[in-house]
Amino acid sequence: MQHITATDTQLASAREVRAAARAGVIAPTSGLAHGLVQANLISVPADWAYDVLLYSQRNPQPCPVLEVLDAGATESRLAPGSDLRTDIPKYRVWRHGELTEEVSDASSAWEEHPDLVSFLIGCSFTFEAGLVDAGIEIRHQTLGRNVPMYRTNRDCVPAGRLSGELVVSMRPIAADRVADAVQISGRYPAVHGAPVHIGSPAGLGITDLLAPEFGDAPELRDGEVPVFWACGVTPQAAIMASKPPFALTHAPGYMFVTDVPDANYAR
Amino acid sequence: MQHITATDTQLASAREVRAAARAGVIAPTSGLAHGLVQANLISVPADWAYDVLLYSQRNPQPCPVLEVLDAGATESRLAPGSDLRTDIPKYRVWRHGELTEEVSDASSAWEEHPDLVSFLIGCSFTFEAGLVDAGIEIRHQTLGRNVPMYRTNRDCVPAGRLSGELVVSMRPIAADRVADAVQISGRYPAVHGAPVHIGSPAGLGITDLLAPEFGDAPELRDGEVPVFWACGVTPQAAIMASKPPFALTHAPGYMFVTDVPDANYAR
Repeated sequence: MQHITATDTQLASAREVRAAARAGVIAPTSGLAHGLVQANLISVPADWAYDVLLYSQRNPQPCPVLEVLDAGATESRLAPGSDLRTDIPKYRVWRHGELTEEVSDASSAWEEHPDLVSFLIGCSFTFEAGLVDAGIEIRHQTLGRNVPMYRTNRDCVPAGRLSGELVVSMRPIAADRVADAVQISGRYPAVHGAPVHIGSPAGLGITDLLAPEFGDAPELRDGEVPVFWACGVTPQAAIMASKPPFALTHAPGYMFVTDVPDANYAR
Repeated sequence: MQHITATDTQLASAREVRAAARAGVIAPTSGLAHGLVQANLISVPADWAYDVLLYSQRNPQPCPVLEVLDAGATESRLAPGSDLRTDIPKYRVWRHGELTEEVSDASSAWEEHPDLVSFLIGCSFTFEAGLVDAGIEIRHQTLGRNVPMYRTNRDCVPAGRLSGELVVSMRPIAADRVADAVQISGRYPAVHGAPVHIGSPAGLGITDLLAPEFGDAPELRDGEVPVFWACGVTPQAAIMASKPPFALTHAPGYMFVTDVPDANYAR
């Protein structure tokens, strides 16, 4: 990581998003705090931490680890003053692989499991800023919707007790901008990097583009191609498949906003 | 990682190096199996694996993880048919932070600790091929010596029970090729990437360039600058400082040669 610090305006916007989440406002974070890294969260009991870290090491494109907090710690080094129990707009609580609750405040999950180890994983919202700056429309932002995400037919490399399939996010891109989108996102390998698949949803086992497993339905227009990126929701698919006794995650699209400029993760 | 496969000639050279090591030949591996990735080894009892993996995650420049084997496994996926117990020319056995044996065959260490978890970590020998191809002399290769390596005054980020300082390798580079050396090695972030320090050894706490802690003494000529790269011996410094009950590593400069072309780890 490089050492580019955020501007005061950027820091103010990040703090505003986290403060709103802490106050209970529930909204997707795509497009917020422009130019700052957003992160996926997965928190597991300490005895599952090695499995998650190894799964991430073996599947770096969907699971690029930005930070691993010590057991019980809730303040991210990527956002001093933050509190991972409250600063994400929406959380999911998982028990034995089942989604049992969605909450805007995860404090009670932490009271139940005070030894949680939290992983912050790179998110493709990070490079969306680069796409927008290049004049590429991010349709779900334009529509005020959440990004569509899909489970695929591609298995991740198993690690310890964890296995599961790759999850992808999708953005419709005009055919004459697809190459630009590849090259721009490719500059950000720590936040999923270049697309894993371009066009042909069937090749990923996706039968209905309009019915994503996570997020909102997309809107594809004439001359646009569906472009698929590895997605940090992939660990949630591993939770569903592998059924650890407990896990806490963000809700897809409702991310943890850090104080770190995207440029730190660019080549 | 990309999917560029080795040529038959390259594969034959890699197998030859591993077979020689297996037969007991003890020689540094810099310059051998040109164009194929070489790796550092650290193997620890399973209950120390999380500490090592987390230390690597928090210190990716000195500790870029290429592969983590399952507990007890000895065949690397980066070299089918390999045996990590025998295929490295020289090993070090560590007990409570003390180097107790150097051996050319680690089988007895594995009999003693059958649950070892092995980490293969990127090595700067990987990008030496790129430097050589660009006409930059690698002095220790020319001299038939081992690369010089130094402990520094820079602390790594601690993780669990592990802490320690950064170890660097050094290559003397002609002043008019230093920028090239930076740019070429910078294309290989998974094998330490660009230098961490150029010139001014004192800035790293190195008082005598001619007395490296590991490897052989260098030879600097007029008009050359000492260029320092993060080194995969860094986990060995963590072992010395943190004293796990047992660890097995390669001996500095005596690496595990894989079947994977360097180009897979280039940008």
